[in-house]
Amino acid sequence: MIQYVHMFSDGDRDQKDLLGGKGANLAEMVKLGLPVPPGFTITTEACRAYLSEGRVPPEVRVEVTQRLRDVEDLIGRTLGDSEEPLLLSVRSGAKFSMPGMMDTVLNVGLNDDTVHSLASFSGDERFAWDSYRRLIQMFGKTVLDVDSEKFSDVLDRHKEEAGVTADVDLTADHLKQIVAEYKQIVLDDTGSPFPQTPRRQVDLAIEAVFRSWNTERASLYRRRERIPDDLGTAVNVQAMVFGNLGDTSGTGVCFTRDPSSGHSGIYGDYLPNAQGEDVVAGIRNTLALTDLEDRDPNVYRELRTAMRRLETHYRDLCDIEFTVERGKLWMLQTRVGKRTAGAAFRVATQLVDEDLITMDEALERVTGEQLNQLLFPQFDRDADRSLIAVGMGASPGAAVGRVAFDNASAEAAQAAGNSVILVRRETSPEDLPGMIAAAGVLTARGGKTSHAAVVARGMGKCAVVGAEDLVVDVARKQIRVGEHVISEGDTLAIDGKTGEVFLGDVHVVDSPVMTYISEGVDAALAIADDEETKELIDAVHRLLTHADTRRHLQVRANADSGEDAQRARDRGAEGIGLCRTEHQFLGERRQQIERVVLAETDEQRDDALAELLQPQVEDFVSLLTAMDGLPTTIRLIDPPLHEFLPDLTDLTVKVALAEERGETGEEIDRARELRDAVRSMHEANPMLGLRGVRLGLKIPGLFALQIRAIAEAVVRLREEGKDPQPEIMVPLIGSNRELVIVRAQAEKIIGEVAEAHNQSLDLPIGCMIELPRAALTANRIAQTAEFISFGTNDLTQTTWGFSRDDVETAFFPKYLENGVLTISPFETLDALGVGELVRIGVEKGRETNPDLKAGVCGEHGGDPESIHFFHNAGLDYVSCSPFRVPVARLEAGRAVVFTDEVGTK
Amino acid sequence: MIQYVHMFSDGDRDQKDLLGGKGANLAEMVKLGLPVPPGFTITTEACRAYLSEGRVPPEVRVEVTQRLRDVEDLIGRTLGDSEEPLLLSVRSGAKFSMPGMMDTVLNVGLNDDTVHSLASFSGDERFAWDSYRRLIQMFGKTVLDVDSEKFSDVLDRHKEEAGVTADVDLTADHLKQIVAEYKQIVLDDTGSPFPQTPRRQVDLAIEAVFRSWNTERASLYRRRERIPDDLGTAVNVQAMVFGNLGDTSGTGVCFTRDPSSGHSGIYGDYLPNAQGEDVVAGIRNTLALTDLEDRDPNVYRELRTAMRRLETHYRDLCDIEFTVERGKLWMLQTRVGKRTAGAAFRVATQLVDEDLITMDEALERVTGEQLNQLLFPQFDRDADRSLIAVGMGASPGAAVGRVAFDNASAEAAQAAGNSVILVRRETSPEDLPGMIAAAGVLTARGGKTSHAAVVARGMGKCAVVGAEDLVVDVARKQIRVGEHVISEGDTLAIDGKTGEVFLGDVHVVDSPVMTYISEGVDAALAIADDEETKELIDAVHRLLTHADTRRHLQVRANADSGEDAQRARDRGAEGIGLCRTEHQFLGERRQQIERVVLAETDEQRDDALAELLQPQVEDFVSLLTAMDGLPTTIRLIDPPLHEFLPDLTDLTVKVALAEERGETGEEIDRARELRDAVRSMHEANPMLGLRGVRLGLKIPGLFALQIRAIAEAVVRLREEGKDPQPEIMVPLIGSNRELVIVRAQAEKIIGEVAEAHNQSLDLPIGCMIELPRAALTANRIAQTAEFISFGTNDLTQTTWGFSRDDVETAFFPKYLENGVLTISPFETLDALGVGELVRIGVEKGRETNPDLKAGVCGEHGGDPESIHFFHNAGLDYVSCSPFRVPVARLEAGRAVVFTDEVGTK
Repeated sequence: MIQYVHMFSDGDRDQKDLLGGKGANLAEMVKLGLPVPPGFTITTEACRAYLSEGRVPPEVRVEVTQRLRDVEDLIGRTLGDSEEPLLLSVRSGAKFSMPGMMDTVLNVGLNDDTVHSLASFSGDERFAWDSYRRLIQMFGKTVLDVDSEKFSDVLDRHKEEAGVTADVDLTADHLKQIVAEYKQIVLDDTGSPFPQTPRRQVDLAIEAVFRSWNTERASLYRRRERIPDDLGTAVNVQAMVFGNLGDTSGTGVCFTRDPSSGHSGIYGDYLPNAQGEDVVAGIRNTLALTDLEDRDPNVYRELRTAMRRLETHYRDLCDIEFTVERGKLWMLQTRVGKRTAGAAFRVATQLVDEDLITMDEALERVTGEQLNQLLFPQFDRDADRSLIAVGMGASPGAAVGRVAFDNASAEAAQAAGNSVILVRRETSPEDLPGMIAAAGVLTARGGKTSHAAVVARGMGKCAVVGAEDLVVDVARKQIRVGEHVISEGDTLAIDGKTGEVFLGDVHVVDSPVMTYISEGVDAALAIADDEETKELIDAVHRLLTHADTRRHLQVRANADSGEDAQRARDRGAEGIGLCRTEHQFLGERRQQIERVVLAETDEQRDDALAELLQPQVEDFVSLLTAMDGLPTTIRLIDPPLHEFLPDLTDLTVKVALAEERGETGEEIDRARELRDAVRSMHEANPMLGLRGVRLGLKIPGLFALQIRAIAEAVVRLREEGKDPQPEIMVPLIGSNRELVIVRAQAEKIIGEVAEAHNQSLDLPIGCMIELPRAALTANRIAQTAEFISFGTNDLTQTTWGFSRDDVETAFFPKYLENGVLTISPFETLDALGVGELVRIGVEKGRETNPDLKAGVCGEHGGDPESIHFFHNAGLDYVSCSPFRVPVARLEAGRAVVFTDEVGTK
Repeated sequence: MIQYVHMFSDGDRDQKDLLGGKGANLAEMVKLGLPVPPGFTITTEACRAYLSEGRVPPEVRVEVTQRLRDVEDLIGRTLGDSEEPLLLSVRSGAKFSMPGMMDTVLNVGLNDDTVHSLASFSGDERFAWDSYRRLIQMFGKTVLDVDSEKFSDVLDRHKEEAGVTADVDLTADHLKQIVAEYKQIVLDDTGSPFPQTPRRQVDLAIEAVFRSWNTERASLYRRRERIPDDLGTAVNVQAMVFGNLGDTSGTGVCFTRDPSSGHSGIYGDYLPNAQGEDVVAGIRNTLALTDLEDRDPNVYRELRTAMRRLETHYRDLCDIEFTVERGKLWMLQTRVGKRTAGAAFRVATQLVDEDLITMDEALERVTGEQLNQLLFPQFDRDADRSLIAVGMGASPGAAVGRVAFDNASAEAAQAAGNSVILVRRETSPEDLPGMIAAAGVLTARGGKTSHAAVVARGMGKCAVVGAEDLVVDVARKQIRVGEHVISEGDTLAIDGKTGEVFLGDVHVVDSPVMTYISEGVDAALAIADDEETKELIDAVHRLLTHADTRRHLQVRANADSGEDAQRARDRGAEGIGLCRTEHQFLGERRQQIERVVLAETDEQRDDALAELLQPQVEDFVSLLTAMDGLPTTIRLIDPPLHEFLPDLTDLTVKVALAEERGETGEEIDRARELRDAVRSMHEANPMLGLRGVRLGLKIPGLFALQIRAIAEAVVRLREEGKDPQPEIMVPLIGSNRELVIVRAQAEKIIGEVAEAHNQSLDLPIGCMIELPRAALTANRIAQTAEFISFGTNDLTQTTWGFSRDDVETAFFPKYLENGVLTISPFETLDALGVGELVRIGVEKGRETNPDLKAGVCGEHGGDPESIHFFHNAGLDYVSCSPFRVPVARLEAGRAVVFTDEVGTK
């Protein structure tokens, strides 16, 4: 015999699956002996039965009757009683908190009779009628599905007629009239009168909660939060207690530690002679919790004891709601309390120091995202500021600087010692020098995975994107927004977390945690100016160090220059997982690649290539010096061809205009030739075109140059007594055969360099896995590759058929709205699709070579959820931007200790 | 104890793995008691031992000595003997015939002594010295690795000095001098004299054969033919016999049936007093085999008996080489003979009628590619013609017509009753009307998977692509090639099989098999004008009918109109697997889709959509009428956005020029607006952009319109007493959620139409699987899809990261050359990568729904090798172009009976 209804006293907090989160916590408090208004929980199992059968199982009604009588006995009030009527709250409570479902109906049990009883019992006629009005309104809307605007129209009309603006200014008589009209609305709308039988109100409310599980909004929320559809919700039915029965009554919320700073102690608010909703409404000023000590020392002592018991029991900061009814304390709700990022770290280590939790548990309590928040400077919230636009916060931090519209002026302003905000309609790889020079990036177009957003995050640079109110006129070097015209050199401030754009200077506060990360714990403690900051640094240090000892995943960084690599190493990177050598050819050197690609003869090409050798050797010497002794994965050049060629439309227009003007001569002939050359190489879908190893095989000298440069850099550094550890990575492999060919070329070149310098050179050669076919044939690729690295950005593009450059603005907003996507798959790895290929790739690769080293490089390597996935998939390392290294270290540690079941949420 | 060397008499034809193909067939002939010059085979196992150990196993030499003595005993000649010396041939013979490996060294055993013996034995001094010269040249090149040009230089010089042009005009004295110089070359080049010991020649030749397994050319060939690298080759050492020892000697080749027509009977050539190489050299005219009967009736009778025995034994047409030495018949080689497509069908059914093979076996003997060849008209080989260029034969057939350069003139010429050849630099979807009007398509650019090639194949229309010598000047309406200038209206003839382009008319012969396919067997027999043709029609009919009874795969066709659908049905299609509805919007209606896409308000869009409803209903009525009673899969519109929008570069140039000219007014304003709109929708990678279901969800009215039109077409046809069976297919699904949303919309619309007409409508809804993610998550998709269809073209693009539009010309030639690709993956399914996703998709889909119907649509559905794959993967149907339906039917039947092991080749 299934039991569908459980008294709070029957359950405990481990029964969240059956009783929901709220019900389980209420049960736990009862189990701890805390004073909880009596009530019961109708299980999620009953909900599931309702959802599959389309009706509430009849056994539920029987059990509800039995448990209602228990509640009446416990509280000493009876449902529908004309003197002291029992009123009930009916609340949904799923395993996970879920907006979109029916929340709460209060005051169930009120009707035309009991409203009078409540008036005399509470001594407040207005309160009683207002409660009744609220019941009808809430019940009408959520249970009976009446359009809530009909109720608010009536309310508004009465306020207007009474000449008042606030609900509270309506008198009991007004409210009686409103109740009458509300009841008429219900009758008109549903064809039946507002149910007067309290028990019928209870039954209808229970069914409404069940029904609300499947509203569209709730379904969508579940999809977004990846909560299974078949859990169902529990229903909590609980006796109402009143905090507004005079001065010895009241209501409050409290925390066992300060959720904002993490300070140990007692925090909370108390409002005498009031109900919970009054606290929320903020109509009256609350008292500090400590004032309760003076007003009612016994209640205060009892509450303190309850708080201590709850914190000891939950071993975490608890968030508590309580009511005092005529001197008696009632605990209404508790849960583990939300907290700021800083508080999370401090509370976690405090609890360790109090021997309440272990370091492993402390690691579960803090997240990489919290750590990330602590790494960025913030605007001083007390500073004056003038908001002119809001875009998307795409890369956190706060930046203030002079506006620049192009690389040249950004670099000039930076060289002159000024902080710069680079402003573009949208950015492209060509804007990289400007982005490097800038303190922050602001675009009018693009979303969280636009070029500006991705590159800025990669650089750890503040960015606001898609601020669509800005009209960016690059030609005139102006931004127009509303009545403002902002010119080059004017000052803007941008908040990369909130997306806010301010005109003029705003004071910025540095991050002490960033100082710790980049300069070490002693340096950070030395400049910390208060105890709270010191505690925070200590907490982060202890938790990060613990994560380092626990994690299996190595954390490397993506870096293209010695400077970046050094920065990554300072932050704890244990190697470079991805050096994108094509980035070494942006700016001035771009012309040389263009010459290589457009060369008409082998000689022209070889000449162009030969000029690149020494600069490349210097690039690698610098990189390998910074990473001395650590593995350094150098990806052979992977230029999306079109990014290294002039724009075809621009060229076509240029030639057409010159012809129109009748211009002749060498210049126009050259332009025409260039146009034809670029047109012949123009690709309909460059992302799927002549890239990576394909270009390397088509222009063999390109890879050969780089391999030779790497080998020569190694030889030179060894001669200086250093220990360079490069790994050569081939991009865009689709077939093992491609790698076989490149490997043969590479071994020949490396052999030549080794022989010339009389050294032995054995440089590991591996490849990216960034095409589905590479993952599916990893067993073959592992015959040739000494390591593989998943390029999950590109793998996401091909697995989904999404061009990152296009889909973001074209339909991601739509897809996030309709729930096809819960988050951009470029932000967090799509475990079902792309992740499946990662799993297949690792498994097949290790079938061939059980020791095959496998890593991941790209955005996902720094994303917490994705890092957990990679840990579980058995990868050896993740590589992320230098700025995400601390986050990755923490999450790689958390992945080990994390005990939550995979896939339940 | 491993035995490495087997006498021919020890083996049989089932031992191809061990003895290679040639050795196994020689052994089989010995087993049949046929007179084979004695010899032995050194096994592939010996080769594998050589390859792994780097030396010939010493046991091999011992066994060779033993077997050589056996051979000497059998033939009565001795190696190195000064009277009747035994000469040997040493040949490679792998399991599969393999160009690129060492082929043959003849005359092994000749040296400075035995050359004199051979001269007196043969009575031909010149022949003996020429044989010695050839031995040194062949041995020098293939065994000793001497640059063969050194030999030919000597030969050329002697011919020049002697004032002759042909080798045969050199005298014995010349040849003696040449032999002396050849020996000097060997000494200079290798540092050792040409080996004079016959046995040493044998050993060196054997090792050279083994070594040749791993030459680059052989490796590449294996990759292309997908032959495993670890098989190794066998070596056949065989006594040489001489057909040039007088009038009672001779040599010949014969076939047990006519390999060209399939006629039953005896076919072959005979050359008296000659060696095999003289037949090949074609220096003297051969006699018909029947002449041998007069010359030597006993030998002829013996040969006839041998032929009959071989054909009975092999149960197939055999190809035989023989030599008669002084009245004794020697069988030198046999194998199953190659034949023409027509002969293949006729021989197969003849053998069935002779009760030599079963119908299942007959089905193994003919291929879809052979059937395909029979379907096309051919140029009359005897006709006069003037070849002006050669491109790639991209779609078979022969077409003659007047040159047209654009849609309008192609359509006008066709309307005037002329046959048209559409000539373009390359084609795009915009050229579709012209391609439809044309008899053949000729392009100067693009390869076998270019747009022109693919679409022409889909239409079954002759096409030659990539004829790069043609300068196509569309503006002047001219083709220039060499000294020719071809203008609009001039006549060209193109051969879609050979890629030849002829100036002027060439006589074309219709295909009787095509008549059979489209009009049935009786109609075809009625107009067949000779017995051979009648036999051919009968053979094709019987084999195709047998394939239909055996196959598990249903064969559907891809068709976009009622006309195409009817054609497909005539050819035996059992349904439509893919109706590409976007093709219904090319030409005039294109504007309407452009209006929908560019609409600025919902009203504009709804208006544009509303106009499309009735035309769409008519489209579907026509299609469903043609396919009455058969499943008809209609894919909702999948327009690559850019194909429905004006070209951005053109627009930009237009606006820039107008601005340059200072033009103003409404038109230029509109052009500017249009440019901005198109620019805002411009996609960097349209293939990975706003397409398929993404566009459908962004512009919901688009799918809604089509679904309503399908439902209304069904209602109307049912009212006419018909039985329409549409299946609605959603394109580019990446996530089940997309399908859930479309399905909900569709069910609503279908319900509305059903209700309005008081009918019950339950139309199956399914989706394409054309993204890796869809295959990987097919278990989820199968919760919503009633059927799935693999779009393997797009799946190939994303799995490999290949844009079909780009990679074909950019690097496929390179990739075919270096062996990364053995065939375009757009032609034959890439079983390892894309095929793996098909397998995963079917398996996961059927985990959820064991009865899930799964098919494939697109090019691969008509490709023989791919059809076998789909059969093995458990698909329910393939869908291909109407013209490939017979091929698919045949191959689907063959897939069932095919007994070759999968994967050995």
